[in-house]
This record gives sequence, structure tokens and C-alpha cells, in this order.
Amino acid sequence: MDVGGTSVRAGVVDADGALLDTAHAPTPRGEAALEATVARVIGELAARHPIGAAGLALAGFITPDLRGVRFAPHLSWRDAPVADRIAARTGLPIVVEHDANAAALAERHFGAAAGASTTVFVALGTGIGAALLIDGVLFRGAHGVAPELGHLRVVPGGRPCACGKSGCWERYCSGTALATTAVEMIAREPGLSPALRRLVVDDPGRVTGRRVAAAARDGDPLATAAVADLARWLGEGLALVADVFDPELVVIGGGVSASAPLFLDDAREHYAARLTGAGRRPLARIRTAQLGEDAAVVGAARLARDAC
Amino acid sequence: MDVGGTSVRAGVVDADGALLDTAHAPTPRGEAALEATVARVIGELAARHPIGAAGLALAGFITPDLRGVRFAPHLSWRDAPVADRIAARTGLPIVVEHDANAAALAERHFGAAAGASTTVFVALGTGIGAALLIDGVLFRGAHGVAPELGHLRVVPGGRPCACGKSGCWERYCSGTALATTAVEMIAREPGLSPALRRLVVDDPGRVTGRRVAAAARDGDPLATAAVADLARWLGEGLALVADVFDPELVVIGGGVSASAPLFLDDAREHYAARLTGAGRRPLARIRTAQLGEDAAVVGAARLARDAC
Repeated sequence: MDVGGTSVRAGVVDADGALLDTAHAPTPRGEAALEATVARVIGELAARHPIGAAGLALAGFITPDLRGVRFAPHLSWRDAPVADRIAARTGLPIVVEHDANAAALAERHFGAAAGASTTVFVALGTGIGAALLIDGVLFRGAHGVAPELGHLRVVPGGRPCACGKSGCWERYCSGTALATTAVEMIAREPGLSPALRRLVVDDPGRVTGRRVAAAARDGDPLATAAVADLARWLGEGLALVADVFDPELVVIGGGVSASAPLFLDDAREHYAARLTGAGRRPLARIRTAQLGEDAAVVGAARLARDAC
Repeated sequence: MDVGGTSVRAGVVDADGALLDTAHAPTPRGEAALEATVARVIGELAARHPIGAAGLALAGFITPDLRGVRFAPHLSWRDAPVADRIAARTGLPIVVEHDANAAALAERHFGAAAGASTTVFVALGTGIGAALLIDGVLFRGAHGVAPELGHLRVVPGGRPCACGKSGCWERYCSGTALATTAVEMIAREPGLSPALRRLVVDDPGRVTGRRVAAAARDGDPLATAAVADLARWLGEGLALVADVFDPELVVIGGGVSASAPLFLDDAREHYAARLTGAGRRPLARIRTAQLGEDAAVVGAARLARDAC
């Protein structure tokens, strides 16, 4: 199950990573209401399939035993023993995992990272979710919170971020960032993109990353420049991560990765140019994720299978 | 053996990490001359002790099999099969390792990182050398070059670096950086430190990190401010590394760590303040290295013992 801020989406996944059935519901506020909803959606699928265990993927800090949620910015759980509570409601073994970790594991077992050794998974969506794999095993760090790549300061003197810092990677490299960049560019050069400008005048909130990417695919020069800006910062941020982690493979996932053909070659060039010791060390391969929006569900199921 | 840009220093190390004897020589230019010197110094010790194997620690890119040197900025070797060449000259099994990796391993087995799980080792010297340990094992990345922390861009809009980037961590957090910061401060406020200013007027090169640290220990206000600047960037850079690697422990080594009491508490506060999710995740411990300048020699010997 992918427990998101607006909806919970669950799937029945077999041993080969195939998604056999799905169910979903809106995400309620309040811990008990959320637990009731999660249990009800699992129960709906359990009524139709023999289910051995369930994994919950969510954006937040998970306890090292994969049973509790310390903090999840878009959910009601705070220092909550989520696995025990859902297990009590469903009678199933439950594990909890960071959604980017779950998605990365799915890509490793069934997708773009199959067979790779040291891998960085970067999901570009509303923000950045990230995961590290070493020889197919998730690297969780000492406190189970690694990595927090979205708030690496990649852009000197950059946009302020809700986290209190500025120039954070996800403020320049995400669906939200793509929209922000386009709106900034329209303010500077209103004539460059009449189509996007009409949206801004109407309501800047209507300029979304998806719409900017679509305009870029249609050849809109301003949207193309906004995507090129994302490509630049994607490459620069990956170079920074590589200086710490030296991956063999980088997998780009999340909703924005659907537009990867627009920016991945550019990002590769920026990455190669900014890497410390460029020219004297092998470059990581950079690939697009293969499992799309189902990755977190498939990965959570895989974890549940292993843990139970 | 620690193969440095100005001298090679070798030691005989027993199974408990104790240094029994030492020998050294100036570092010559040219591959063959360097190999002859390394072999001669090893031979000098082998004449006095029964030696089973030798490890060479150096600053540079090492091949994944720990037998070759791809590139070492201060040494003549370029894509050189160093282990085979030294083995042919000495008749001993030889391994080669990055000097920060060797020092980190020594601290893990015999020093400040004993028993620690996920550890970041940062050596502050002329530049920054760094190493990562996961459960006592060196993490080398996919290409054996992780981590290159000295050139992380930590300071937005910061000093240009010889690597081609700007704001690199080691330009603000190293012995060299401490001197640079002091010289910049003297230019802005000449009256603040008559003692250091006399050095600058004479020859700015006489302001060294060691002298600035000594002046700070004596209460010099400008030197104290320069050390506080180093502490700030040490904390900020460590927060960035922790966002990727989430360590349990950070060990600060290198020559500058002799002055750690002047800056480590400040650095801890900056680290805690800049960490993503500060207040919602456990903090890494930050400690000073224990083995001093012998760390690389002791670690290289430990590796040689394991590898042979």
C-alpha cells in the first residue's frame, strides 16, 4: 500500500512483482481514522485474494525496525506504532517503509535497477524522494532516515525552502520546481510563451510541472528553457551525491520521469561536467525508472514478503 | 607506508595496531624513482623486523582491486600497477589504499571509531580527505573513489577552487582554509590582530593554519573568529553529508584535529541546526580521531594483514 497525503492506494502483488488487483480510498485526518481506512482497504483486497502480509510505503521517518512512524509530514501519525496497530486490525503481518525505499527496491527486483550494485534512486514528484541500494540491499543509514536528498543545498543563493534552508535540490528539481521556474521565466520574458502566460494571468497555480513538460514537448521555447534548467540542477545535484556515494547506477523515478526524454541527456552532460575528478573516474549510468506509479506498492509488497 | 607528496613514512605495525619501528625518505619525482624509494624504505624495515606484507596509503584514485593507482595529484603514478611493481622489488605482498580510507580503518580498529556502525571519517589537513565505514567495512562506492567530500560545494558563491568549481568544502574547512580565512579577515580589519598582521605584511604565506590555531588558543580575537568560521562550515558540510549517509558517528582527523577543542562544540551546534529534519531525528556523535599522524600507516598495515 502507498499511503499518500491525499489517497491510499493498495495492490495485490505476486512473487514476480505483478500487480493482480488494486483498491484505494481518500486519506482521512486523525490517527485512528487513518488506521481504520488502511485496514479497510487491505480487508477489501483480502476478501478477494489470499494475502500473506502487507507493506505500507509512505513519505516520512520510519523506525529502524520498520514497524513505527516517527514523523510523516502529510499524514497524522506521530511516533506511532503503525505496524502493530494495523496488524491488530487486519490479523496480517505488517511492515512500514519509506516510499522511496520501497520504490527503489521494486526497481531493483523488477525494473530499471535489476542486477545493479551501488544504486541511487531519485524520485522527482512534488518534491524529491530518494533511496540508496548497496548490492541490492537498501542502505538506511544509522538512524533509518538516509537519504534526505531533497534538501541538499544544490543551488547557491537559491530559492528559500519550507525546511528553513535555501537552494534545496527539490526547489529546482521536481514537478513543483518545474512550474516555479516557468512562472519566474514568464515574469521576466512575458512574450516568450503566450500559451503559458495566459495560464499565469488567469492563476499562477494552473502552471503545473505536467503542463510545462507538455508545452516543452510541443516545442514551446520557454517551457523548453524551464526543462533545461531542471536538467542542469539534476546533473549538478547528482554530481554532489556521487561525490559522497559513488554509484554505479542512478535511476530517475517519480511523476516527472515520464518526461525524462526531454531532460535526461542534458542532465547526463551536466553530471559528467560537475563531478569531482571528472575525466579520471568512471561515470555512473543514469536511467529512467520502469515501474511508474506502482513502484512503491510493488516494493512494499516485496518487503512484506521478505519480512514475514 | 604513507606515501605523501613530500615524504614517504613507513612503520612496522603489530596485530594490535602498535607502531614498533619507523623509517622515512623524501618523495622523489618519476615513477621508477618513487618505486625504488618505496622499496628501499620497506627493505630498511624488513632488515630489522619479520614483515609479512606491506600496505601503501596515498591520496589518489585507487583501482577497485587495491593494486593500482589511477591518479594521485601529488605523486608521479598515472594508471600504474603499483602493487605488482613494489611486490616485484620487495618480494612482499602489497596492497594500495586511499590514505583517508586507511586512516579511517585504523580509527575503527584501534581508535575513536571502535565499535561504531555507520561512520564518516573526515581528515582536515591541507585539504579534506574522507572515508565512509558501514559496520566496520570501508564503503568504496561502485568505482572505488567514494567519497570525494573535499569538493562538495558547501559554501554558496564561495571561493574558487583548483578543481574548477567554487565553494568547495576544503576551501573553508582545512588547515589551508583556516589561513585563507585569517588573511581575508586581516585585510578587512587590520587592527584586530597586530600579531597576525605583522606576519601578513611580511609574507602572507607565513600565516598558516597551525599559526592561526595557536593564536586562537592564546585568545587572539581575529584568529578566534577564523576558527569559528571553520567550525561553522564544518558543521554545515557534515549536515550535507548526513543528508546522504546518515552516520552514527563522525570522526574528525588530520592535522587540524589537534585544535579540535577550539571548534568542535561550535561545529556540533551548526551541524544540529542545519540537518534536514533537525529535531525529528537522532544526531550523529562527532568525535576527534585518536591515532594522530600515524593513522594512515597503521590502517595500511591492517589492510595488508587482512589481504595477505
